[in-house]
Amino acid sequence: MKKAILLIFIPLLLTSCQRTESQTSNNANQEIEQKVDSLLSVMTLEEKVGQMTQITYMVVEKQNAKGALDKDKLKEAIQKYHIGSILNVPEGTAPTRERWQEILEEIQTETNKSNLKIPVLFGIDAIHGSSYTQGATLFPQQIGMAATWNPELIKRGAQISAYETRASNIPWVFSPDLDLPRNPTWSRFWETFGEDTYLSSQMATAMVEGFQGDDISAPNNVAACVKHFLGYGSTTTGKDRTPSIIPERVLRQYDLPIHAAGAKAGAKTFMISSGEINGTPVHASKKLLTDVLKGELGFEGFVVSDWEDIIYLHNRHKVAATPKEAVKIGVMAGIDMSMVPNDFSFFNYLVELVNEGEVPMSRIDDAVSRILKVKLEVGLFEKPTWNTNDYSKFGSDEFIQEAYNTAAESITLLKNNDGLLPILKDAKILVTGPTANTMKSLNSGWTYNWQGENADKFAADKMTILEAFQDKLGTNNVLYSEGVSLTEEINIEKTVSLAKNADYILLCLGEQNYTETPGDISDLEITEPQIALAKALSKLNKPIILVLAEGRPRIISKFESEMDAVVHAYYPGNEGGRALVDIITGDVNPSGKIPFNYPRYTNALTKYNRKYTESREGVTGHNAYNPQWEFGHGLSYTTFEYSNLKLSSTEIKKGDTIDVSIDVTNTGSREGKEVVQLYLNDLFASITPEVKKLVGFEKISLNPNETKTVTLKITEESMSFVDNNLDWVSQDGTFKVMIADKEMEFELN
Amino acid sequence: MKKAILLIFIPLLLTSCQRTESQTSNNANQEIEQKVDSLLSVMTLEEKVGQMTQITYMVVEKQNAKGALDKDKLKEAIQKYHIGSILNVPEGTAPTRERWQEILEEIQTETNKSNLKIPVLFGIDAIHGSSYTQGATLFPQQIGMAATWNPELIKRGAQISAYETRASNIPWVFSPDLDLPRNPTWSRFWETFGEDTYLSSQMATAMVEGFQGDDISAPNNVAACVKHFLGYGSTTTGKDRTPSIIPERVLRQYDLPIHAAGAKAGAKTFMISSGEINGTPVHASKKLLTDVLKGELGFEGFVVSDWEDIIYLHNRHKVAATPKEAVKIGVMAGIDMSMVPNDFSFFNYLVELVNEGEVPMSRIDDAVSRILKVKLEVGLFEKPTWNTNDYSKFGSDEFIQEAYNTAAESITLLKNNDGLLPILKDAKILVTGPTANTMKSLNSGWTYNWQGENADKFAADKMTILEAFQDKLGTNNVLYSEGVSLTEEINIEKTVSLAKNADYILLCLGEQNYTETPGDISDLEITEPQIALAKALSKLNKPIILVLAEGRPRIISKFESEMDAVVHAYYPGNEGGRALVDIITGDVNPSGKIPFNYPRYTNALTKYNRKYTESREGVTGHNAYNPQWEFGHGLSYTTFEYSNLKLSSTEIKKGDTIDVSIDVTNTGSREGKEVVQLYLNDLFASITPEVKKLVGFEKISLNPNETKTVTLKITEESMSFVDNNLDWVSQDGTFKVMIADKEMEFELN
Repeated sequence: MKKAILLIFIPLLLTSCQRTESQTSNNANQEIEQKVDSLLSVMTLEEKVGQMTQITYMVVEKQNAKGALDKDKLKEAIQKYHIGSILNVPEGTAPTRERWQEILEEIQTETNKSNLKIPVLFGIDAIHGSSYTQGATLFPQQIGMAATWNPELIKRGAQISAYETRASNIPWVFSPDLDLPRNPTWSRFWETFGEDTYLSSQMATAMVEGFQGDDISAPNNVAACVKHFLGYGSTTTGKDRTPSIIPERVLRQYDLPIHAAGAKAGAKTFMISSGEINGTPVHASKKLLTDVLKGELGFEGFVVSDWEDIIYLHNRHKVAATPKEAVKIGVMAGIDMSMVPNDFSFFNYLVELVNEGEVPMSRIDDAVSRILKVKLEVGLFEKPTWNTNDYSKFGSDEFIQEAYNTAAESITLLKNNDGLLPILKDAKILVTGPTANTMKSLNSGWTYNWQGENADKFAADKMTILEAFQDKLGTNNVLYSEGVSLTEEINIEKTVSLAKNADYILLCLGEQNYTETPGDISDLEITEPQIALAKALSKLNKPIILVLAEGRPRIISKFESEMDAVVHAYYPGNEGGRALVDIITGDVNPSGKIPFNYPRYTNALTKYNRKYTESREGVTGHNAYNPQWEFGHGLSYTTFEYSNLKLSSTEIKKGDTIDVSIDVTNTGSREGKEVVQLYLNDLFASITPEVKKLVGFEKISLNPNETKTVTLKITEESMSFVDNNLDWVSQDGTFKVMIADKEMEFELN
Repeated sequence: MKKAILLIFIPLLLTSCQRTESQTSNNANQEIEQKVDSLLSVMTLEEKVGQMTQITYMVVEKQNAKGALDKDKLKEAIQKYHIGSILNVPEGTAPTRERWQEILEEIQTETNKSNLKIPVLFGIDAIHGSSYTQGATLFPQQIGMAATWNPELIKRGAQISAYETRASNIPWVFSPDLDLPRNPTWSRFWETFGEDTYLSSQMATAMVEGFQGDDISAPNNVAACVKHFLGYGSTTTGKDRTPSIIPERVLRQYDLPIHAAGAKAGAKTFMISSGEINGTPVHASKKLLTDVLKGELGFEGFVVSDWEDIIYLHNRHKVAATPKEAVKIGVMAGIDMSMVPNDFSFFNYLVELVNEGEVPMSRIDDAVSRILKVKLEVGLFEKPTWNTNDYSKFGSDEFIQEAYNTAAESITLLKNNDGLLPILKDAKILVTGPTANTMKSLNSGWTYNWQGENADKFAADKMTILEAFQDKLGTNNVLYSEGVSLTEEINIEKTVSLAKNADYILLCLGEQNYTETPGDISDLEITEPQIALAKALSKLNKPIILVLAEGRPRIISKFESEMDAVVHAYYPGNEGGRALVDIITGDVNPSGKIPFNYPRYTNALTKYNRKYTESREGVTGHNAYNPQWEFGHGLSYTTFEYSNLKLSSTEIKKGDTIDVSIDVTNTGSREGKEVVQLYLNDLFASITPEVKKLVGFEKISLNPNETKTVTLKITEESMSFVDNNLDWVSQDGTFKVMIADKEMEFELN
C-alpha cells in the first residue's frame, strides 16, 4: 500500500473560514483591530487582567433580594476588578426576558461609568433554545437534534435560540457541545451529537452557523462557544470530569475534526474540557490550547475555562503546587478568560504574576485582544443592551412550530412488531411510568437552571407525554398510573390492574433531569423498579409501546423482547409530548435515526464504527457484536427500497472524488422521510480499518411510489485516516461503498 | 517544580540482567554463540525459515489414533519444512508424562535424522503447574498467586512447575502472563497478577527466576515465555483480542515495567499480544518489538507470535492486503518464530519473500540465531529428551504441600462480620452453589486442555470444595444441594428447605472454567440464578459464608450486604478445596490480600491507584469512589497494630533513598501473617499524580504479642513517573508515605 500524506489536512478544511465575509466585513475587521489596539494601548495591567476574569452572577447578587444586583458588589467588580464577563442567572433560576433586560442594563450602566467603558460580555448556557429565559422556545437536546439527521432544521433552531437569547440581552451562548462520548454512561452523553465524528461535524457546522449568522453583530445573532475542547467525552470510567486515556492519533482522527468543524464555521469562542488527557489537564495543555487550537485550527477568538477549572489545577488535578501556580499554568497554556467564578483570586494572582515577570505582558495582550475583538464583533460597544420589545417573535407560534418539527424529526421508532404503530385513535390507552408525566424527562439539565429540576413549574403551560395524550385522545380514553418512580415501586399492582381495561399500554421509562457529576451513574442498566414494572405489564399479553425518554441508553434487554414497539424520544424539549403523540397516533411519520449504538448489555459498549476484531464473523453469544440497536437505525410507517447504486468511477487516483448515486423509492402507502446513509470501508490499511464509517448522508422526503435519485460524494477526506505520524493519509487499495443493503467496490491507486 | 530526567531509566533496571551468570557461563555463552554461528553458516534458507516455524501437534497427529504421531506427517514437517517448534497436546488433552516422553522421543528421533540434527523446541501452556500433564501438581492461577503477596512462594511454585514440565520432556513454558488488565470483564483477568504494576513486577521476577533457575540447561529448569507483549490486557471493551486504546506514556508507566521485570529476570522468550494498540496490531509494530523490546529492554532471546497471529494481520486486523504481506509485516516487525500453527503457509511465504528480496537475510539470520541460542541454552542439542523416571518428585507429597501452602496464602478473607469465621467444627453446614462441587471452579482454563472442561475427570482424586468439607467435617455434618447452575435455577426451594437444618450456609458462587474468547462476557454482574439463590437463602437469617471461586470480580452488590462472611478463593488449583476448608474451620489463618479493586457496580471500574479527580472528597452516592473491596484488602483471624512509622530522612535530594520502618504487632490471640504495604503519594506533579501507589511490601509472620520492625525502601524509582516526553522523572515537592493507618511526609528538593 502506497500512501499519500495530506500534510495540511486540517488547515485545508479551514481555507473557507472567511467565506461569509465580504469586503465590507474586511473593512469592519480592520476597524475592530484598530479599536482593539487603541484600547490595549491605554489599558492598565489591572484593566487587562479584569477583562480575562469571568465571575458568576452570585458574586454581584444581593442576598435575599429575589436576585437583584448588589450595587456595591457590582461597582467593586466593575470599577475595582474591571471584570470582563459574567455568567449564570439570578436566584439560580431563569428570569423573564424583561428581567434580563433590567439586569443587563444595570450592569452595562455600571461599565459605562468606568474609565474605558468596556461592556461586560454576559454568557449563558442556552443549549437547546434560550433555556435560561422564561417562556423561551425549547428544542430537543443535542442528542435528539442529531437524531433528526437534518442540519437545516438544527441551523434554524440555533437561529431561533440566538434570537431569543439576544431578546434576553445576552449575546453569548455556551453552545454547541462538540464532545465525542466514548462511554455512554457519561452524564453528558445527551449534550452531544452522538458517537459519530462525521454526523457530529455536520451538526456542529449547522449549529454554529445558526447561532452566529452571517453578521454576528446583528441583533438576532449571538457568539457561539464550542465546548469542551478536547477529549472531555472520552472519560474512561464514564464519570464526569474523570481522566481520559486516549492517544493523540485517536484524538486527532475522531475528536478533533468535530472541533475543527466548529472552528471552520467561525465559532467565536471555545470552552475547555475540565478533564485530563493522559495525565495532563486540558487547562494545562499548551500543546492543545495554543499549538493545536490557536495554531493548527487557526482559531482567532478567545478561549474560556470551564467552571473553576484554573483553581482545580491546584486542588483537583494537583499539577500546580499553589493556586497561584495554577493561574500561571492555565494562562500560559492559552486560557484567555477564566471562569473563576466565585471570587477575584484569579485577578489578584495574575496581576502578581505579571508584575513578577512570571507571565509576560505579551500573553496578557494576546488574551485581552481576543476578548475585546469578540466584544466588538458582537456589537457590544455600539449597543451594550437591546430592547426586548423589539423581539416580537420570542416564544411565538412560528418558533414553537419549529421546535415541534425538530422534536418530530428526532423521535426514533426503533421497533414496531407487526406494524403495531400507529395506534387506532379511538383506542383506550394506559399511560404509565416515571417519565410519563413530567417536563423533566422532556428537557433534562440546563433547562431553567443547571439541573433542570424546575421544568414542571416553568413549563407548566407545556404538555407532558400524559397531557399530550389526554389532549389528543380525550381524557376518557387515557388511563394513567405512575407505576414506579425511578427509584421505587409505587403501585405496580394497581397499574397492572388498570392495564386490563386498556387496548394499549404506553410504558414511559428512562430518566429525568440531570447533568455533570449529579448525573453520574455506576450501572447503565435501567433502574430496577422500571424493570419490575415492565415485567409485570408484559405478563398481560396487551400490546406494549415502550417510550424511552432518557439521556443515555439505559440497558433494557431484560424485558425488551416483551415490548411490541419501542420509540426513543431522547430529551425532545417542551414540544416533545405533542410530537410523540402525533407519531404514535400516526399523524406524523417518524423519521429519526438513532445517532449511537444502543447497547444490549452493560459491559458491551462497542461503537458502530468498530474494528473487524470487535465483530468478526462466526462469533456468537456474548462474544458477538450485538447492540440492541445500531447507529443509524430508525423505522418509518412507510417502506423504502434502494436500487441502482452507481459510482461515477470504480478506479480513481489520489485526489479524485466519486459521485455515489442511488435511487430511493417509497414503496409504502404514505409520505415519509428517509435518511440516505453512505458508509465506507477501507478493506486494508496500515492502521486497522473500521468495518464501516459514515462519510455522507441526506434526508429526503418521498410520496408513495415516488423515486428520488440521491447523489453523495466520496472525497479524499472520506478515504483518509490519521496514521502513526499523525498525518491524515489515504492509501491505495480497495474500498467498499455501502448504502442500506446495497454495496459496491472501487479501487484507489 | 524542578525535574530531573532519568533518561535511561529502564536500561538502568537491566544492568543486573546477567547477575546469575558466572565466568563459566560466560564461557558457555561464547560456546553457544560459536555453535549458532557455525550452524547458521551451513543452513539453507529453507532450514532457517523452518526454525522460525511453529506448528500445533495436530498437524503431525494421526487421525483417530489416540493422539499418536503420524510418521509421514512428522517426517514431512521435519525433513521438508525443517520446523523448529511444536506446541500443544495429542488428542487436545493432557497425556501422562510417560506418554509425553514417547512423543518427544519420536519427534527428536526424527530430527536426528535431518541434515543438521536441530532438535524441535516443544512449548506448552503450563501456567499454574505443569497443567498439561496428567498427575502434575497444580497451583493457584496467577491472580491467586498475586494474592499471596509472597514472591518466594511463587518462585518455589515455578521451580516445581519447571521440574514437572521437564519430567514431561518439555523445556519451554508459555508463562508467566505479565499483562496488566484494565477492564476486569476481560476473560484472562485471572491469568494476570492483578491491577498493580509494582506487585505484578515483583511476582514476574519470582516466576521467571523460578522457571529458569540459575542454569537453564539443568534438567529441572525450563525456558520461560513472558506474554503478551504489550498492552494485551488493556482492551477497552473487555472482550478478548479487541483493540487497546492507550497512549504510549501510560503504556510505558504501567504496562512496560512488568515486562521489563520479566526481561531483567532473564526470560528467554516473549510472546506477543494478539491485540492492537491504537490501530496498530502489536504483531505489526516494529517499534514495540524491535525498538522497545529488543532495543530498550535489551532482550536477547526470541519472540514468538501468538496463535495464528501473523495470518490474522491479513484476515482479522486487515493491515495486510494478502497473507504473504502479513508474513512480511510480522517478520520485519520483529517476530522471530510464527505460531502458524495449522499449516506450512508461513514457511512457503517467507521463503518466497526472502528469494524476492522483500525480507533481507539479515533479519532471518537474526531470528534464527535467537532461536538456536535458546535451544542450545536449554541443552536440547546435548540431550533432546529426558528420562521421566529420573523425576521421582513428580506429583509428590512435598510438591502437593507447596501447592496447598500457596493456595492457603492466596485465599482472601474479605469480610467476617462479628467474627463469624472460623466456624465451629462440630457444626452442621449446608454447602451449595454452582462452584461447590467441581474442580473446574478451582482451576479454570489451561488445565489439562485449553478451556479446562475436563478437570473433574483428570483431577478426580482431588477434592472439590464440597468433598473437602465432607472429608474434614464428616459426611453427616455436611448437607449439599446444588441450588443453581451458572445459568439456571435447579432447586432453590429445596436448598432453602435444607438450609433450615444447618448451622451455617456455605454459599459457593462465581464462575467455572474459561479463557480467551469463550470466556467473554457482556455483563460483569454475577449471573441471575446465583443472585436468586443468594437472595432466597438470605431470608433465613442463618449465617451465610459466601465463597467466591471466580476469575474476575463478578458484581455481587445486590446481595453482598446479606452475607455474613466473604472468602475469595480465586482459582486456587487442585489443593484449593482443602486449603479453603482449613481456613473456614480455622486450622489456617488467612493471609491473602486482594490484588485488584473488587467493583461494586458494573460501570464503576476505577482502579485503586486512581487520580484525585476520580475520588474526590465530599462526593457521595454513585459519584463517589466506592469499590466493594479495595486493592490490598484482606482480613485475618488475628489483629495487627501498626506503630512507630519512621523515615530515615524527611528531606532528601535527587538520587537519595529513604528507609521506611514501622513496627507491626500481633495484638490478637493466634499466629498470623500480615502483608505490610507501603504506598506513596506525590502531592503535586506535572502529570496528575495518583492518590496512592504501591512502592513496596513485605509479608511477615507474627506470634501473638510479637512485634516486628519492617523496613522498606523508597527509591528514585518509587518517586518517578513517565512524563510527556516519555522520560521517567521525579520532581521536587512533598511526598506522603502511607502504611496501613499511618502516614508521614517528606520533601524532595
